[in-house]
Amino acid sequence: MASKIPTRLYLSEDEIPKYWYNIRADMKNKPEPLLHPGTLKPAVAADLQAVFCKEPVKQELDETTRLVPIPEGIQEFYKAYRPAALVRAYFLEKTLGTPAEIYYKFEGTNTSGSHKLNSAGPQAHYAKEEGIRSLTTETGAGQWGTAMAMAAAFYGLDLTVYMVKVSCEQKPGRKALIETYGANLIASPSETTASGKAILAAAPDTGGSLGCAISEAIEKAAKTENCRYVLGSVLNHVTLHQSIIGQEAKAALDKYGVKPDIVIGCAGGGSNLSGLIAPFMGEKLAGKSNARFIAVEPASCPTFTRGRYAYDFGDSAKTTPLMKMMTLGSGFVPSGSHAGGLRYHGMNNALSKLYKDGYIEARAEKQTDVFEAAVMFMKLEGILPAPESSHAIKAAIDEALECKRTGEKKVILFGLSGTGYFDLSAYTAFNNKTMSDHIPSDEELERGFATIPDIAL
Amino acid sequence: MASKIPTRLYLSEDEIPKYWYNIRADMKNKPEPLLHPGTLKPAVAADLQAVFCKEPVKQELDETTRLVPIPEGIQEFYKAYRPAALVRAYFLEKTLGTPAEIYYKFEGTNTSGSHKLNSAGPQAHYAKEEGIRSLTTETGAGQWGTAMAMAAAFYGLDLTVYMVKVSCEQKPGRKALIETYGANLIASPSETTASGKAILAAAPDTGGSLGCAISEAIEKAAKTENCRYVLGSVLNHVTLHQSIIGQEAKAALDKYGVKPDIVIGCAGGGSNLSGLIAPFMGEKLAGKSNARFIAVEPASCPTFTRGRYAYDFGDSAKTTPLMKMMTLGSGFVPSGSHAGGLRYHGMNNALSKLYKDGYIEARAEKQTDVFEAAVMFMKLEGILPAPESSHAIKAAIDEALECKRTGEKKVILFGLSGTGYFDLSAYTAFNNKTMSDHIPSDEELERGFATIPDIAL
Repeated sequence: MASKIPTRLYLSEDEIPKYWYNIRADMKNKPEPLLHPGTLKPAVAADLQAVFCKEPVKQELDETTRLVPIPEGIQEFYKAYRPAALVRAYFLEKTLGTPAEIYYKFEGTNTSGSHKLNSAGPQAHYAKEEGIRSLTTETGAGQWGTAMAMAAAFYGLDLTVYMVKVSCEQKPGRKALIETYGANLIASPSETTASGKAILAAAPDTGGSLGCAISEAIEKAAKTENCRYVLGSVLNHVTLHQSIIGQEAKAALDKYGVKPDIVIGCAGGGSNLSGLIAPFMGEKLAGKSNARFIAVEPASCPTFTRGRYAYDFGDSAKTTPLMKMMTLGSGFVPSGSHAGGLRYHGMNNALSKLYKDGYIEARAEKQTDVFEAAVMFMKLEGILPAPESSHAIKAAIDEALECKRTGEKKVILFGLSGTGYFDLSAYTAFNNKTMSDHIPSDEELERGFATIPDIAL
Repeated sequence: MASKIPTRLYLSEDEIPKYWYNIRADMKNKPEPLLHPGTLKPAVAADLQAVFCKEPVKQELDETTRLVPIPEGIQEFYKAYRPAALVRAYFLEKTLGTPAEIYYKFEGTNTSGSHKLNSAGPQAHYAKEEGIRSLTTETGAGQWGTAMAMAAAFYGLDLTVYMVKVSCEQKPGRKALIETYGANLIASPSETTASGKAILAAAPDTGGSLGCAISEAIEKAAKTENCRYVLGSVLNHVTLHQSIIGQEAKAALDKYGVKPDIVIGCAGGGSNLSGLIAPFMGEKLAGKSNARFIAVEPASCPTFTRGRYAYDFGDSAKTTPLMKMMTLGSGFVPSGSHAGGLRYHGMNNALSKLYKDGYIEARAEKQTDVFEAAVMFMKLEGILPAPESSHAIKAAIDEALECKRTGEKKVILFGLSGTGYFDLSAYTAFNNKTMSDHIPSDEELERGFATIPDIAL
C-alpha cells in the first residue's frame, strides 16, 4: 500500500473542495459568544459591521451552517495557487527510521509564502462585492500583510497596512514586497491616527506593537469613507476560510484511503491550526475517528499550555469585542522570538473550547529545538520552512520517533503553513549558536493575567 | 476547448518523464566540438575528467543518444519537488484582452527558487556514485549556489561555494541560505587559492567577478583529494538535465492536446532556455512543427543579438576548453543589472548553432521594461518572478498583444524559471524609479570582442 502512494498526493483542479467547513456546526458545546465591550451583551451583526464587511460578519456569527459554499469568484482566486501540495515525507521517514507514515500539507508555494492568502482572498472578494473601495489591516511578522497586499492588488482595492515599526526595520524584504504589490505601508505607530499620535507622544522611540497597529488600522478604517478593516487570524470567519487547508488535505488522503492518526499544527491565533484540523475534527466530533490533535506553540508564548480560559480582549488597547478563549492576557508581552506569527496572547475561541473539552492536546517548544527540526527537515525535504511551521515539524518528528520506539505504524499529518525566505537571519542565528530561548517565568505570566478583565461569565 | 483547460495542467507523479532529451541528437548540423585550450584539438573525456565527474563528461560528449534514461535515484530526487506546475495564465490573458492562450512552466517552487536544482541534483548524484566526497562551484546571483547546497546536503557531500564577494554583501539572504544548507561559503577572491591571492595582491579592494570565482573553484577542486568541480549552465550535460523542464511541459500540454506556436525563454548561459525548448525544438527539427522560439536577453548583455559566433573561453581567466558560441568576449564586463543570472558573455554552443541556423529568434530588453512586465504579472498571477524570468514574461506579453492586434489565437508558452525573493531591492528600485538602463555602446562591445582569441576554425 505504502509504496503505491506518490510523494505528492495531488488533487486535480475539479477535485478542489467547493465548500468551507464550519467546525462550530458540529460542536455540541459551542464556543461562548463574542461580547460587546461596552454593554457586555452578545455582539450582533450591527456591532461588527462598523468595522468588518457584511459577509464575513455573517460567517462570524453563523454557528449552524456546516458546509458553506465557496463563491465562484473565490474559487477562481483559489485556482491561481491551489490545490496546495500534500506531500508524503518519504525522505524524512527514511532518515528517522520510523514505521510511521508522515504527510504534510504545504501552504507556502504562493508568493505571500503562507496560508494567509486563503482568507485574504475571500475578505477582499467580499469587500469588492459590497462596493467597498479600500481596506486597512495590520501586520507583525508580515505574512498577513503580504497576503492582503496580493489580494487587494488582485481585486483592485486600495490597502493600507500598518506594519509594526520594528518589523519594518528587521524585515525590509517584507516591506518591499508589500509595497511592490501596491499597498500603502505605514510604520506603526504613526502620525496618521490619533491612537498612533498618542503613543508617539508618550514614547517617541517605541518600536511599536501589534496591539498598537491594530488600533491604528481600525481607527483609519472607521475614519475613511467606504473603507473596512480586515483581520488575518483569531476570528471564526478567518478559520472558516482556512478550512480549505483541511478540506483539501482530507480529499487527497481519502483518494488514497489514508486516515490520519495524529494531526499536528502550529498555533498562534489559530488560523492555520483550525484550518488544517477542521474536517478531521468533524469526524472525531461525530464519533467516526479516534485521531489525536496536537497544537504546538512556542514556549515563549504558551497560550494553550500555560494560559487561562477567560473572556479577554483581542488587542492591547482593549477595543475589540470580548472573546472567551485561552489567553495570557492582552497585556502579556512575549519575549523576542523568531516565530513572529505565533506571538499572540489569545486563541480562536472555538479551538479554545475544543481544547478545554479535551479534543485537542497542546505542547510548547523552545525555539532552538524547533530550528534544529527545521534544519533537518529542509535538508531532507528540500523546503525552507517558516519558523512558525517548524513548530509542527518538531512535534511530527517527535511523534514519529515515538512510533519507532513502540513499533506503531501511525499516520501523521502536519501543516507546513509557510516558507522562511524572510527569516534567514533567524537561521543564521541558529547556525551561529547565538539563538537563545526564553521561557516566561510565573511572575511574567502573572503580570499578563492581571490584564485579563474581571468578567465572571 | 479553452474552458476545459484547468489553470494548472498537472501531471501525476507516474507521468513525470523518465528520460532527458538530448537535442543535439536531432541536429543535422551539430555544434562545433569543444577544443582543448592548449592543443586546440577536440577535447576528449580524459581532458574534462580532470575537473568534472565521469558521467556528466560522457553526457557532454554524447551527441547521438536521443533519449537518456534518468537514473532511478535522480527520479527520486526530482519527486521531492516535481512535477513543476504548468499554468494557464487566465488572469493575464483576460487583462491583456488577447485572443492568445498563454501558458507558463513555473520552476520556482523549490527552495532554491529556480530551475537550477534540475541539474544540481543529477551532478551531486553522479559524484556520490563515483565515490567523490566533495564538490566545488561558484555562484554569482546565488541561484546555482543555493541549488548545489541543497543537492549536496541531500546526497551528503561536502560543498565549497565561491561566491562573488559583492554578491555576498548585496544578498545576505542567499549567503545565509547556502550556509544553512551546510555548504562552506567563501567570498571570492579569497586567500584559499593561488588565483584568488594573485587577484587580491593586485586589487585588494575588488568586489570579485564570476570569472575569478570559477578560477578559484576549479583550482580548489584540482588541489583537493576526491573532489570535483560542478557548473550550472553553458555546458551540454547541464542543458540535458534541464530538458526535464521541456519534457514535463510537453507531456502536460500533450495531455490536453495543446501545441505551442511560440516558446519563449530568458537566456543567460542557456540552461533554462535550452531545457524548456528542447522537445519542442526536436519536433521543429523533425519538420513536425512550425513553432517559433524566442530567446530573451538583457539589453545590457546582448550575447545573441549583438554578439559574434566564434570560439571563445568560458571564463575570463581563459582556462576552460574553447567553445564555438555566440559571445561578447570573455573580457566583456556587463554593466550592473538586477538579472545577475543573465550576465554572461557566452551561450551554450548548441543553442548558438540553432540560432545561427535560423531556428531561434532573439531579442534584447531593457530592465525597466522587464520590471514593468514583472509587476503586472505578479499582481495578476500571484507569483513574484525573478528578474531573469521576467525577460520571458515581457516577451510573452508583447506577443500576446501582437495577437490582440492581428486577432490571431496563438498558443504561447514561456518559462518562468524562478522567484524573486532575493531581488526585492531591485523591485524597490523600480518602484522608486531609481532603476536605470544601460545599453553598451559599440565601443564597449568592441573592447569585449578584442578578448576573443584569434582561432580561425
